[in-house]
Amino acid sequence: MSGDVPEPAFKAVSPIDGRHLDGDFVDASSTEIDNVVDHATQAAAAYGRLGKDQVARFLQAAATAIEALGEALIDRVHLETGLPRARLIGERGRTANQLRLFAEVVREGSWVDARIDTAIPDRQPVPKPDVRHVHRPLGPVVVFGASNFPLAFSTAGGDTASALAAGCPVVVKGHPAHPGTAALVAKAIRQAADSTGVPDGVFSLVQGRSFEVGRRLVTHPKIKAVGFTGSFRGGKAVFEYAQSRDEPIPVFAEMGSTNPVFVLPQAAATRAREIAKGLATSVSLGVGQFCTNPGLVFVQRSSSTHLLDDLRENVLVTPPGTMLTAGIKEAYDQGTRRLASTPGVINMATGQPEQGPNQAATVVFKTGLDSFLRHEELAGEVFGPSSMVVECEDKDEMLEAAQTLRGHLTASVHATPDDAQNYRDLLDVLESRVGRLILNGYPTGVEVCPSMVHGGPYPATTVPQSTSVGTNAIRRFVRPVCYQGFSDRLLPDALKNSNPLGIWRLINGRFTRAAVGAEPSG
Amino acid sequence: MSGDVPEPAFKAVSPIDGRHLDGDFVDASSTEIDNVVDHATQAAAAYGRLGKDQVARFLQAAATAIEALGEALIDRVHLETGLPRARLIGERGRTANQLRLFAEVVREGSWVDARIDTAIPDRQPVPKPDVRHVHRPLGPVVVFGASNFPLAFSTAGGDTASALAAGCPVVVKGHPAHPGTAALVAKAIRQAADSTGVPDGVFSLVQGRSFEVGRRLVTHPKIKAVGFTGSFRGGKAVFEYAQSRDEPIPVFAEMGSTNPVFVLPQAAATRAREIAKGLATSVSLGVGQFCTNPGLVFVQRSSSTHLLDDLRENVLVTPPGTMLTAGIKEAYDQGTRRLASTPGVINMATGQPEQGPNQAATVVFKTGLDSFLRHEELAGEVFGPSSMVVECEDKDEMLEAAQTLRGHLTASVHATPDDAQNYRDLLDVLESRVGRLILNGYPTGVEVCPSMVHGGPYPATTVPQSTSVGTNAIRRFVRPVCYQGFSDRLLPDALKNSNPLGIWRLINGRFTRAAVGAEPSG
Repeated sequence: MSGDVPEPAFKAVSPIDGRHLDGDFVDASSTEIDNVVDHATQAAAAYGRLGKDQVARFLQAAATAIEALGEALIDRVHLETGLPRARLIGERGRTANQLRLFAEVVREGSWVDARIDTAIPDRQPVPKPDVRHVHRPLGPVVVFGASNFPLAFSTAGGDTASALAAGCPVVVKGHPAHPGTAALVAKAIRQAADSTGVPDGVFSLVQGRSFEVGRRLVTHPKIKAVGFTGSFRGGKAVFEYAQSRDEPIPVFAEMGSTNPVFVLPQAAATRAREIAKGLATSVSLGVGQFCTNPGLVFVQRSSSTHLLDDLRENVLVTPPGTMLTAGIKEAYDQGTRRLASTPGVINMATGQPEQGPNQAATVVFKTGLDSFLRHEELAGEVFGPSSMVVECEDKDEMLEAAQTLRGHLTASVHATPDDAQNYRDLLDVLESRVGRLILNGYPTGVEVCPSMVHGGPYPATTVPQSTSVGTNAIRRFVRPVCYQGFSDRLLPDALKNSNPLGIWRLINGRFTRAAVGAEPSG
Repeated sequence: MSGDVPEPAFKAVSPIDGRHLDGDFVDASSTEIDNVVDHATQAAAAYGRLGKDQVARFLQAAATAIEALGEALIDRVHLETGLPRARLIGERGRTANQLRLFAEVVREGSWVDARIDTAIPDRQPVPKPDVRHVHRPLGPVVVFGASNFPLAFSTAGGDTASALAAGCPVVVKGHPAHPGTAALVAKAIRQAADSTGVPDGVFSLVQGRSFEVGRRLVTHPKIKAVGFTGSFRGGKAVFEYAQSRDEPIPVFAEMGSTNPVFVLPQAAATRAREIAKGLATSVSLGVGQFCTNPGLVFVQRSSSTHLLDDLRENVLVTPPGTMLTAGIKEAYDQGTRRLASTPGVINMATGQPEQGPNQAATVVFKTGLDSFLRHEELAGEVFGPSSMVVECEDKDEMLEAAQTLRGHLTASVHATPDDAQNYRDLLDVLESRVGRLILNGYPTGVEVCPSMVHGGPYPATTVPQSTSVGTNAIRRFVRPVCYQGFSDRLLPDALKNSNPLGIWRLINGRFTRAAVGAEPSG
């Protein structure tokens, strides 16, 4: 190999006007990557054994430090992404709230799934040993920042917050579309680590435009897991690199989806105006750049005349918006051109025209079930503010459509109580295809809470058994370890008899916060 | 392709005397495999929605039906595996107990991880939706029966019991070394399904000697997960087939390990006789055919003279045993010859000589850390009653040895309280390498309980985040689904307001068995 040659520098480019922004960034060299990962590995043992209060303080300090970046952060993100300032202020709030929520989860402590089975020395035919179970961090995690949430799913986003909460050092591969944002946020996290006594190396940022930087990180033998949010192509490549390692590692890749919406007949007939408005808003929200963007809408022809008329009216007045990058805008144009030229597809409505570079207009297409089934690519995601209405003739066609769906993050159903009763079988089919099933709502807007599942069967994600949003996201970055025959002194605090952490534990099959030996009976 | 040609029949061969046993078995054709999987798929929806009491009754009935096979089962397993009858009676008990334990888990019901976050319609800036989370079955699961546990980890073993408990139909690929056992047990499970009203297709057995049968099952598009217990080579092949599918699916492969044992200086000096006896017993138990067989023993030269003398004495009088198949015996002979001929390795003791076909003698080798580090193959598993003692000079060498270890199911440490204090860092290194850490005990003997982790980092398993023994094994075969904005009537019972199942749930962040709205505060 050629050794360590200097890599090309790059600058951030604003999608608003195409100009180069201040600041020079450089693709990380293999030496830099090795150093960063070594640093993270050295920090892993100490960080994995920090008290839960200290980890919680670190996460809270990170939230505060990000907020303290103030206007400078919002200005920079706006320039790098073209996203409106109001949206970015909201997203910053969500980012800080996520960190604080994980701080609460860590401080409460029961997430470690402590389980205790006490010994029965005189059991026949063999004694029962004392066995105790707890979750332990996997080790250094690589997080790929996403372009579409430059704050809430990037450098200090959900993957980073949950991996840090789990006790894993994090190496973020910054998204090249917002390197300045990444650098500002990384500085805030490192300040938070410093101020709370968290070991150096627990958080690092690596920049790079080249895919090679990501490949080196994922294939580094000391990396133990990967969090990724982005395209199917990118996620699949990362997944395959990870599987081809000498030691395959888990890749939690959220690769987007088309988020089918089903409008059932009574709902279409009685709530046409409201549903049409909601759909138009959801399709164009954030210039359609959400992984939960509703890209497919299934209706029945006989019940949806008003609904589609109203949808058309709403779309026609929808203003255009600036997309995240020139590349994303180009892909959107290609995608919508491909949809428009597919036989059997008609353009139902296009929103207000583009007014500047990298702006995209909302567009809604329409087709019948036959064309939809004949042209597999119509079911694929076009990232941006477009959606495809698929007209079905009857319930059977709707069911048939549902059965052809692959894995998605969400499915939404608009239904009156009678509809829901009549389409119980449709709900069952959809349940088997998605992570989140929404009744009379829209997929955009992902609540950060213990019940959230932002995941779903492949190809929506690579691990359908996980979520990347909500408190359960922490579980991705741990594995269970059990201790057999350990004395109290040698056990982790979570498993000591007296329950010094005050957490919920499963003792001999019963949930309790009591100490061992003091469990309630019955 | 050639279409469906008749596949060759085969007979079971007894390892005891090499004779062919009664009964003709046939490699399943691709048509048979398609039919079986279609059948399982059709059953999946109905089975996944059965009431928990009915699933529990089915599992209990399966346990009873297996016990009711009586002596005929024990006779057949003994002939097919050469395992002693007493061991098989014990293993039958464990198999029935596992099914009953999962019946209890299902009946209690809290394993589904029900989570409820209630709506806040007037939250600013956006309303908070009602979101509820529960685990749902993945769909049809293929289970590969293991040769070394013809009952407890084969047709009705831990993988089958946990997948059925999770609500997934199971297709067992019977192990070709015990097809008659597999057929008897399968019949019992189907009887149990019949008698408890469980849909046809929920359980099927497919026989086959050809690896092609397994490949077809794993790559069948309607199969949603795989449980596997066996060799690294077999597990890796299954894993790679599953990853190469259009829709990759999880493969929970437990591929064995060498289960390192560390005897610390004070323990070696003060408990030499007891540890030597325990080790010799553990190495030769079940003719060494356990995935938890201790294949590596690390000692310090200065403290282990008595220990090794005692170990030698114990091994010398250990009787030989019949291995499971001629192929396993051949591989054992090759493996031990390879160890014996590695430079720096000496044969420390060989047990009593073989007395019949396919019998294996216990053998313990010894080497120094230098040779161990120089010859990577010494760290690999030799399936059977052999073990390698590695003499270290001091604590640093022991730590160095531990740091070179890859993933294992278990690590055991023999230590006095002072030893444990002095070797805290060794315990920490071992914890990062295994699923189960044992203090002053032996790895063989895997307790079936909520705290058990029978798993570990790759290459011990393909999913370090799971266990294949114990109640948590059920979690492998489900994924989370959340319901947003659902009315009570449409929600699964586990998530209804009134908590009709009486299970533990996380309501707005608090564990409770109360109904929604009646949670304790504070």
